[in-house]
Amino acid sequence: MVGKQDVFFTNDVVAALDSCLAETGLSAVFFLCDENTERLVMPEFAKSAFYKAGNCITVLPGDEHKTVETLMSVWTALQDKGATRHSALVNVGGGVVTDLGGFAAATFKRGIRFINVPTTLLGAVDAAVGGKTGINFNGYKNEIGAFREASSVIISTRFFKTLPDMELKSGYAEMLKHGLLSGIEAYNRLLDFDLACADMDGLLLLLKESVEVKRRIVEKDPEEKGLRKSLNLGHTAGHAFESFALRRNRPVPHGYAVAWGLVAEAVVSKLRENLDSAVLYSLADYIYSHYGAMAVTCDDYDELLGYMRHDKKSISGEFNFSLLRKPGDVVVDCAVDEETVRAALDIYRDLMHI
Amino acid sequence: MVGKQDVFFTNDVVAALDSCLAETGLSAVFFLCDENTERLVMPEFAKSAFYKAGNCITVLPGDEHKTVETLMSVWTALQDKGATRHSALVNVGGGVVTDLGGFAAATFKRGIRFINVPTTLLGAVDAAVGGKTGINFNGYKNEIGAFREASSVIISTRFFKTLPDMELKSGYAEMLKHGLLSGIEAYNRLLDFDLACADMDGLLLLLKESVEVKRRIVEKDPEEKGLRKSLNLGHTAGHAFESFALRRNRPVPHGYAVAWGLVAEAVVSKLRENLDSAVLYSLADYIYSHYGAMAVTCDDYDELLGYMRHDKKSISGEFNFSLLRKPGDVVVDCAVDEETVRAALDIYRDLMHI
Repeated sequence: MVGKQDVFFTNDVVAALDSCLAETGLSAVFFLCDENTERLVMPEFAKSAFYKAGNCITVLPGDEHKTVETLMSVWTALQDKGATRHSALVNVGGGVVTDLGGFAAATFKRGIRFINVPTTLLGAVDAAVGGKTGINFNGYKNEIGAFREASSVIISTRFFKTLPDMELKSGYAEMLKHGLLSGIEAYNRLLDFDLACADMDGLLLLLKESVEVKRRIVEKDPEEKGLRKSLNLGHTAGHAFESFALRRNRPVPHGYAVAWGLVAEAVVSKLRENLDSAVLYSLADYIYSHYGAMAVTCDDYDELLGYMRHDKKSISGEFNFSLLRKPGDVVVDCAVDEETVRAALDIYRDLMHI
Repeated sequence: MVGKQDVFFTNDVVAALDSCLAETGLSAVFFLCDENTERLVMPEFAKSAFYKAGNCITVLPGDEHKTVETLMSVWTALQDKGATRHSALVNVGGGVVTDLGGFAAATFKRGIRFINVPTTLLGAVDAAVGGKTGINFNGYKNEIGAFREASSVIISTRFFKTLPDMELKSGYAEMLKHGLLSGIEAYNRLLDFDLACADMDGLLLLLKESVEVKRRIVEKDPEEKGLRKSLNLGHTAGHAFESFALRRNRPVPHGYAVAWGLVAEAVVSKLRENLDSAVLYSLADYIYSHYGAMAVTCDDYDELLGYMRHDKKSISGEFNFSLLRKPGDVVVDCAVDEETVRAALDIYRDLMHI
C-alpha cells in the first residue's frame, strides 16, 4: 500500500486540506493531535468544512507516548466515534502523531485513509512522507508498524515560526542527511543557510528540495528492500545514541541523535569507503557547533554496539550500515566488523572534542 | 502488500514447507501455534530442517484469545527470540492462529515474511488465503488488522481427519458460499457431497476448487474496494449472529453463523434481487438439516440490526449487503432498508422452523 501520494507545499493549509477531502466521498473525518497541537494549531483547523467538534482525538505529547497503549486509545476513540472504513484520519502534529496516527489508520478496520499535516520541521522532512508508520515497543523504537502512505501530505512552514530552536535544528539534521544523499551542491546549500535567523520562504524552498530527495528514493523502493536503506544514513548510530540517552532518562531530540549519528557514520564511511576528509570535517564541524556533542566514554561502547546490532536493517546480529562514498553516492547493506565500529567511535569522540 | 501467493495442496506438508523456506536466505524461522496444534501437529514440524527448539511460540486457543494482549505476547516473543526483518513466521493452526500470526508478522519491524499452514477446513478455505489478517478489539471481530498475504499457504486434508464434526461443518459453510459465488454446478456438487463420511481425497479436490474461487476474486480486488465484497455473502448477517451469541456467552462456530447468515441473506436476495426460490429453499433445507438453527425472536432484531450496521462494509450506518441474483452472479454494495432486513429475519425464522 505504498504508492504515489500528493504532497502540497502551501501556506493555506485548510484550503489544501478541504480540497484533498472534497474529492473522496468520505463518511466522516477525524482529527488526531497531541495536547500541544490541540492548543496551538487545531483552532486553525476548526475552519475546515470537514471539522466537527467531537471528532478530534487528542493524545499525550512526546515519543514516550508513542506506545501500544496510546495506539489502543486511538482505535477505541475511532470506534466510539463511529468511524467506518470510509472515514479519514487527519494527523496534525510532529512525527509522533503522524507515525502513530498513520499506524492507527493503517490497521483500523484493516486500513482507512489518512492525511498528514506535519507541524514540525522534522515531521515535514522525515516522518510525514514515505509511508513508514509505527510505534515503539518494549523500549525499541518503531519496532511495530506498517508501510502505508498517507493519501496526502500538506506541508507548510507557517507552523515552524513558533518552534523552539532545538526543534528546528532537529529537523534540519534530516535535511543535512538528504543533502548528503543528493550531492555536494545541495549539501553545501544547507551548510550555507542561516537557520538561526531562518527566512521561512527560503526554508520552504530547501524543504521542498529535501522532501523530493526522499520521495524519489521511496518511490523506487517503498518497502526498503535496497535503495531506501540509504535514508538510514546516520540512523544506525543515531538510534543507538537515542536509545542510550533514553535508557538514562535524558532523552535527546531525534534529530540531534541523527546529527551525531551522521558524524559517527561519516567516520565509518571514511574508514570503509574512503569518504573525502573535507566532507567528514565540514560535517563534524557543523554538527559540533550547532548540536554540541553526545558525551560517551569507551565504557559505553558495549551498550551502543548492542543497540546497533538490534537495528532493523541488521541481518543475524552483524552491523549493517548505509555508508557514503561521497555526497550523492551511498552504498547500502555494508556489513562492518566490530573493530571498525569501535575505532569509529574513538574518532567520533576526537572530532566532537569529547 | 497483497500479491500473488503460492498455495500448495499436498499431503507432504514438511517437504512443501522446507522447499518454500529454502529459497529465501532467511536468518531464522519461527513457528506460531496454539496449545492444541502444539500437541497434535507440531511434532510433525519438528522434522523440518528449519525447526529449532525454542523458536516455537504458543498462544491460547480460541477466538476469545484473538486479542491485542495475545498479539503483544507474540511481538514480545519474536523480539526476545531475536527475530529480525529477515526472519519468517510459520503459522500452524486454524483461523485464529493464521489471522493473529499474519497480523503479528505484518507489523513486526513493519513486516516480516509469513507462511500459513491451516489445520482446520475453515482455516484452509477461508482464513489462510487472501491476505486478511487481524484481531478482535473491544468486542468487535477483526476490527484491527491489515491486508497482507502469506508468502505461501500449504493446504493438506491430513490434519482434518481428527477434526470434530462441528469443525468440518464450520469450514464447509464457507465452501457452500464459494459454491454460490461460483455457479449452480459447483453449488450442487457441494450439496451432493457426503461430508458425514468424508472421503478426504474427494474433499481435497472440492477444497482446491473452492480456494480457487476465492483466489480469483482476491487477485482482482485485494483490498476489498469492490468485487471482493462478494466474499462477504452471508457475513453481514452471519457476524451479527456470531456477535449476538458471543454477547450471551454462548459462542457459536464461525461457519455455523455464516451458514445461518447465508440463509438470511439469501432471503434478502430473494426480496431484493429476485433470487430463485429453488436456490433459497435448497439452501435453507441443507443448512437447517446440517447446522440446525440459531434461535432468535423478534425482540432480538434491534440488537442484530445494530451489529449489521457496524459491519465493516457499512457506509455511515446503513445496511450494506452482498446479494445473490443467482448462483455465480453477485451484486455488492447493496444498500438495504431496515424494513426489508426485518422482513428477511421474519422469513429466515419461518424457513428455519423457529
